[in-house]
Amino acid sequence: MAVGQTDFPIMPPILGIQIGTTNAGIKQIERDDLLVFQFPETATCAAVFTQNAFCAAPVHLAKANLAHSPRWLLINSGNANAGTGKQGMIDAQQTCDDLAQLIGGKMQQVLPFSTGVIGQTLPVEKIKNALPKVVSNLVENQWEQAARAIMTTDTFPKGVSKVIVLNGENVTINGISKGAGMIQPNMATMLSFIATDAKISQSLLQQCLLAATELSFNRITVDGDTSTNDACVLMASGCSAAPEILIDSGNYNIFSAAILEVSKKLAELIVRDGEGATKLIRIVVSEAASDTEAVQVAKTIAHSPLVKTAFFASDPNWGRILAAVGRAGVIEMELEKIRIYLDNVCIVRDGGRAIDYTEEAGQIVMNQAEIIIGVKLGRGEFTQTVLTCDFSYDYVKINAEYRT
Amino acid sequence: MAVGQTDFPIMPPILGIQIGTTNAGIKQIERDDLLVFQFPETATCAAVFTQNAFCAAPVHLAKANLAHSPRWLLINSGNANAGTGKQGMIDAQQTCDDLAQLIGGKMQQVLPFSTGVIGQTLPVEKIKNALPKVVSNLVENQWEQAARAIMTTDTFPKGVSKVIVLNGENVTINGISKGAGMIQPNMATMLSFIATDAKISQSLLQQCLLAATELSFNRITVDGDTSTNDACVLMASGCSAAPEILIDSGNYNIFSAAILEVSKKLAELIVRDGEGATKLIRIVVSEAASDTEAVQVAKTIAHSPLVKTAFFASDPNWGRILAAVGRAGVIEMELEKIRIYLDNVCIVRDGGRAIDYTEEAGQIVMNQAEIIIGVKLGRGEFTQTVLTCDFSYDYVKINAEYRT
Repeated sequence: MAVGQTDFPIMPPILGIQIGTTNAGIKQIERDDLLVFQFPETATCAAVFTQNAFCAAPVHLAKANLAHSPRWLLINSGNANAGTGKQGMIDAQQTCDDLAQLIGGKMQQVLPFSTGVIGQTLPVEKIKNALPKVVSNLVENQWEQAARAIMTTDTFPKGVSKVIVLNGENVTINGISKGAGMIQPNMATMLSFIATDAKISQSLLQQCLLAATELSFNRITVDGDTSTNDACVLMASGCSAAPEILIDSGNYNIFSAAILEVSKKLAELIVRDGEGATKLIRIVVSEAASDTEAVQVAKTIAHSPLVKTAFFASDPNWGRILAAVGRAGVIEMELEKIRIYLDNVCIVRDGGRAIDYTEEAGQIVMNQAEIIIGVKLGRGEFTQTVLTCDFSYDYVKINAEYRT
Repeated sequence: MAVGQTDFPIMPPILGIQIGTTNAGIKQIERDDLLVFQFPETATCAAVFTQNAFCAAPVHLAKANLAHSPRWLLINSGNANAGTGKQGMIDAQQTCDDLAQLIGGKMQQVLPFSTGVIGQTLPVEKIKNALPKVVSNLVENQWEQAARAIMTTDTFPKGVSKVIVLNGENVTINGISKGAGMIQPNMATMLSFIATDAKISQSLLQQCLLAATELSFNRITVDGDTSTNDACVLMASGCSAAPEILIDSGNYNIFSAAILEVSKKLAELIVRDGEGATKLIRIVVSEAASDTEAVQVAKTIAHSPLVKTAFFASDPNWGRILAAVGRAGVIEMELEKIRIYLDNVCIVRDGGRAIDYTEEAGQIVMNQAEIIIGVKLGRGEFTQTVLTCDFSYDYVKINAEYRT
């Protein structure tokens, strides 16, 4: 069902970043569901987490451990360890401790991540039993396996790789992500792990990740639900021969632009694989009085079930888009100034359907798998983009039958 | 697909309120799509309208005409006259003028209402040609025909009737409403017309309607979309033998309670007939720190596609409810204090699944057609209720194929 799925890219190893995966039997199906990242003492690590008030236990623990110079990420799919009360925290700590003991580290240096069904206790024994295999497996070169190990309802593994050159030396950036439902602005059931061999301080890495997240993972939505578990991690091993990246430097600009690019591509892959998605919709709101306002209008359109079902039907029902703009809560918006486009076809102008618009022209655009909704508000100079997908029978099917 | 549909009730005539309907050919199907209410000079009329910034032309006109002691409501289904630019206003005025000329009134005394497809110009000639038949038809006793004439995707006509006694004299209240999709807090694609023979000033009638709407039509949601056209009208003919209803009187308390009761029942009928609905869900949020907070939490649950698809599947997926509460935007909410119930079955307590909860007990509740989600926040003493329905294959089907 994914929109424009591409093959998993060739992802070179990241010096110093080791990966191990295995099937711990957490999921019912036969697929890897346990993943460990290991990075050297020289590494720095940044992370952002879900804004859901009821974070899952692993999120609480990962947030706390981020301050202890982490060296391992312990990730499982198939069980979110969310809504599991005090036992959830005990279990999350237990798995971190199990890994630390096995590998000779401190449990505070392990960041745990879980994704999957909410409300079932974590099968800690299964994880403990599987960890020796993961640890004995650690190598720098199995990014596709890592991408597969974090999948839940995803239909394909998601990876992006990019190389930049700083002072004549290569710096490599690899990222993987998983969706696929509950994807929402402000972090949703998504996990994303990005690694680089760059040398950069933790504070600058965190700043870089925050900026990239705001314009990538926080600009996508599948169904408006925010998960209890989402996180995005950026690890920098420091093993590249390039010099340390410092703030206010040309190198930082190059590096942060590359991180943003990788993040945007990973975010887009999540939407392409949105549950039941048949269309990728880019909502570009321009001429807004502020970025906030532009995002507000774009997300109101993106969350409208009526807009999303119309796109599923390839129906150029511009009235629903206009109605969504109208209820976005922007004060003193003037209908007469609004113009709405499907790709380059103007569908709304002068307060109603554009005079030169034809259903045929709209239909041609709607039949595409990827569509841009352009909304010009006529209020200012700010532009923001939000990505979403359509709402299909399969979305209902996938979410109605998730636990059966 | 409606949940617990009941037969249309016996609705007695309202003295002084006359009704005429006909098939003007606005819809493709053979069904009445034009409705006129006529009330005497002694009558008062109150109304509330959609909060969508892009109101349809008839809404703008009805708002303006409300100040001119209206005597007629002119309602069509099948075409919303929304997103129709300047032509939309010209057309709405034309139909009001046509009716006024025919009936010997002023066009400012006509309130127009339209519901149906957005963005197509109103077929004013068809309406003009049909009006003589409607006017020659005006009688006090065809409420079911009126309820049928305003239907769009509704599967059954919706009516509620109630008689109260004031100073020994009967006062009758009749109401009709239509949904069925795009139903949202703060007025959605719903129209509701309530009539009574009570004698009451316009200002007090408006106050009464506002209070009733807030706790009825503004407490329901099907899909979170707000229409450009919705309205609720309350007409009082003044023909009852009961004395005029005055503010701060026992009679006002009785009357306003009855209007609220009728409004709540009409609102509930809209949700029961929500597009594709198979379940009626009452979300009762209690122990909130304010009414606003209670509504905020309830609506976040009500709008969650993940919660709604789980209910469609009769899946007691309490994790999704908990996740929705967590993203409702209430600050300093404590997970440990939250308790969540499906009817009387406690599913969440002490930060996770209630220890005594069993899937069997949850499943029994979920198999019902009507379910109460109770959320106790442990923060205060305020309680609010929001009604919604589940999200089914048929919701997608109805909205994907609406124009085909």
